[in-house]
Amino acid sequence: MSSYLTILGFNSAIPTVNASPTAQMLEMEERHFLIDCGEGTQVQLRKAKSKFSKINHIFISHLHGDHCFGLPGLIASFRLLGREKPLHIYGPEGIKEMLETIFRITETYRGFEIIYHELNKNYSEKIYDDSRVEVFTIPLNHRIYCNGYLFKEKEKERHLNMEEISKYPEIETCDYQNIKNGKDFKLKDGFILKNEKLTTDPTPPISYAFCSDTRYLETIVPIIKDVNVLYHESTFLHDLKEMADYTGHTTALEAAQIAKAANVKKLILGHFSNRYGDLKVFTDEARAIFPQTYLPKALETLTLE
Amino acid sequence: MSSYLTILGFNSAIPTVNASPTAQMLEMEERHFLIDCGEGTQVQLRKAKSKFSKINHIFISHLHGDHCFGLPGLIASFRLLGREKPLHIYGPEGIKEMLETIFRITETYRGFEIIYHELNKNYSEKIYDDSRVEVFTIPLNHRIYCNGYLFKEKEKERHLNMEEISKYPEIETCDYQNIKNGKDFKLKDGFILKNEKLTTDPTPPISYAFCSDTRYLETIVPIIKDVNVLYHESTFLHDLKEMADYTGHTTALEAAQIAKAANVKKLILGHFSNRYGDLKVFTDEARAIFPQTYLPKALETLTLE
Repeated sequence: MSSYLTILGFNSAIPTVNASPTAQMLEMEERHFLIDCGEGTQVQLRKAKSKFSKINHIFISHLHGDHCFGLPGLIASFRLLGREKPLHIYGPEGIKEMLETIFRITETYRGFEIIYHELNKNYSEKIYDDSRVEVFTIPLNHRIYCNGYLFKEKEKERHLNMEEISKYPEIETCDYQNIKNGKDFKLKDGFILKNEKLTTDPTPPISYAFCSDTRYLETIVPIIKDVNVLYHESTFLHDLKEMADYTGHTTALEAAQIAKAANVKKLILGHFSNRYGDLKVFTDEARAIFPQTYLPKALETLTLE
Repeated sequence: MSSYLTILGFNSAIPTVNASPTAQMLEMEERHFLIDCGEGTQVQLRKAKSKFSKINHIFISHLHGDHCFGLPGLIASFRLLGREKPLHIYGPEGIKEMLETIFRITETYRGFEIIYHELNKNYSEKIYDDSRVEVFTIPLNHRIYCNGYLFKEKEKERHLNMEEISKYPEIETCDYQNIKNGKDFKLKDGFILKNEKLTTDPTPPISYAFCSDTRYLETIVPIIKDVNVLYHESTFLHDLKEMADYTGHTTALEAAQIAKAANVKKLILGHFSNRYGDLKVFTDEARAIFPQTYLPKALETLTLE
């Protein structure tokens, strides 16, 4: 099982013909997590051929319009498509009041429950946990209360070494799960087959950190340490550092510094100000500090590894 | 001065890659009126190369999401683009509470005033009036409180007959406005030049009626009588008449009946259910009753005449 990231939109502020506001679809261990939902996200999801029905968890970083104005329409479409399953929404305090006011006034009746997980803490907390994935908040520093999110696969099962196992007819299919879980196998004659002989190491768990919007913030480094992929906003180049601070954003150079300090494997930049034409200037600036920096491509699906 | 209609979106309910929800830009006597504003309207406006800054009046028919979920994002973009002029919004009671709740929670500060004109009457009323244009509500019958809008150019000035005028050097440029207004001209010798000799008839005023969403409703006929162009929803074909009644919509056949009874010059259909592929079935059904029926073309600008 791999994890996949589809960036549905990565532009800041004003949507234009070729620039969609922030939204991402993370597929991790068969869970489909929607991260942020700017206006037009439902159309981007259709372009990406994502199945609406698979989305059960939506994570909203902050309540600026370019990160959440696509939510009411997406939820209304869920209803029209006959959804019955509950939907979990994680986001800043206030998100429930906003959405429920909209649904009441627009008479958007739902055939399904929305379970709100409203956030207000200024420290990282685990907000999602199942058998294979966990999600933590990454408190950010923007003009409004804002969290990034850290998505982590849990430790996986060990792989069966079938070549070795086939030498022992005593080992039956029903024993496989115990062996995958790391247990040794005791033969009838009392001999103990060590687990490391019967298995190979599990696929290392993947982790993904989404950090937008924020000022340069070193406190996130320990939280996102060693992640496979970091998406970090870089609204401006460093010559506009003052503007970045004033508006609560990061420069490409600073995003690279964070990536380097956190020892991530790969950095994807995003949330670019409309003032820039050719986005190559962002990777040029960042790669001087962190070479594994990339630009997002809209609707491209990236395998996380 | 002509009037122009650009249909930005004409689909119902669920936005898809090639189907935008309801929104229209009416340019009448140099006023720019935005009619309805489904999700993604600001991008459609950009595709149509409409200048955001020219929009001072927005008319919302009803508060279902596919007619209003584009408003918060459009208004946030107005602010980002530096708008200072007031914005007038006409729509059902509740629109102010919804928008102001969204702006408070998303901290969408504005550098301009929004003047809300909340509607709750069940009879047609004049809601806009300036020197050249007036706008009336058209009470409709949908599942939720809903108005269509009738836009009317006022009686225009008479055209100067320069061939005739040039025969009388006594008539000076400063006299032209009086003559355009229909006044006779008295020569110094006391002879009265009749106005009809000095002018030709004015260009007839144009009127446009927007009717969406509604059940078949004969009471609108006297309100929209003789308009140049009628946009009337036709969500379904007539074989789904029961479904149309149940969901508060009109069939193509019924829209044609309304157009015929009101003696309009041209009917444009819209708000088609997603279940139909080739939209020609709508004009086929309607033209049997009202031949001057047309399908909208997204982003095409129509000269009203």
